[in-house]
Amino acid sequence: RRILDAARELLTEGSYADFRMEHVAARAGVGKAAIYRRWSSKQALAQEVLVELAAPHIAVAETGDTREELLAAVVNPMRAVTETPFGPVIRSLMSQIATDPKLGDPFRATVVQARRAEVARVIERGIARGDLRPDADPSIATELLVGPVYFRVMFGGELTLDFANRVVEAVLSGFAAEPAAPARS
Amino acid sequence: RRILDAARELLTEGSYADFRMEHVAARAGVGKAAIYRRWSSKQALAQEVLVELAAPHIAVAETGDTREELLAAVVNPMRAVTETPFGPVIRSLMSQIATDPKLGDPFRATVVQARRAEVARVIERGIARGDLRPDADPSIATELLVGPVYFRVMFGGELTLDFANRVVEAVLSGFAAEPAAPARS
Repeated sequence: RRILDAARELLTEGSYADFRMEHVAARAGVGKAAIYRRWSSKQALAQEVLVELAAPHIAVAETGDTREELLAAVVNPMRAVTETPFGPVIRSLMSQIATDPKLGDPFRATVVQARRAEVARVIERGIARGDLRPDADPSIATELLVGPVYFRVMFGGELTLDFANRVVEAVLSGFAAEPAAPARS
Repeated sequence: RRILDAARELLTEGSYADFRMEHVAARAGVGKAAIYRRWSSKQALAQEVLVELAAPHIAVAETGDTREELLAAVVNPMRAVTETPFGPVIRSLMSQIATDPKLGDPFRATVVQARRAEVARVIERGIARGDLRPDADPSIATELLVGPVYFRVMFGGELTLDFANRVVEAVLSGFAAEPAAPARS
């Protein structure tokens, strides 16, 4: 507990480059050996911090209202990033997740996979209710709903409920002028 | 030129934590003073590398075909990330862009702003042609088209033409079963 708290604090305060086992040990008031007994590497420790912080923000409650459930799929990661320590920690770690398979692979296998599965269930329920097209593509639904949030985390722009609603509106209705998309050229 | 080449090579090979002016100077075969005459900080140098690498991949040619232009808006950043040194460099810098305004602010004011303006023009042309709804929301179009690409850069998944086409299809047609989205609850 103390070790995970110390690791979370260091990842919240600084960059991954400064995240070193001896700093975690000093902050937690333990020896490095005590850390290595449970975590084989700093990537493994960072991964456990990520899982702990992300876990409360993945589930989408089944409300029976497809628009509401799609909105939750956007708002959950948005709130995690804007209102909880997951925000500074994921910002510090996104480069590492993108470049270091020792952190990226376990992160994708846990947090990302859990979010994908949750979004896929939202899409399936929406199709079953007749609210979504039977061919609504669950393989890119997470990208369309959560990608815009991370785009703004990196590249700027407000992360507000209004933004989340606009994303959901676009994912539901699309941009095409007519129900049928323009013919492929 | 030699300095920018050295900076690009170092950012391609390693993490931003290892990107130091003395390393750039050594690689370029110049003194640190020669670098500081043109770039006041390593953020300023990294920013120029980013702008140089991103610049060729922003413009969307006006073809008269809205679907084709939307696809280019997805494929341009995707190709930059998968097929050019922009890929490793942006991966190395995304945490820094998200956390350090000395790098993030100029990057947003140049590359991100240029891409947003280009996508907005694609949307405006599509509306003018009658292909897109008059109320298609340009303020989130970049998020919907480019956000999915960066989601996969960070969180995994193939970056293929098929993926880009699925994103465009969804942004055009939406997921809703009927032309009008379900009523707000």
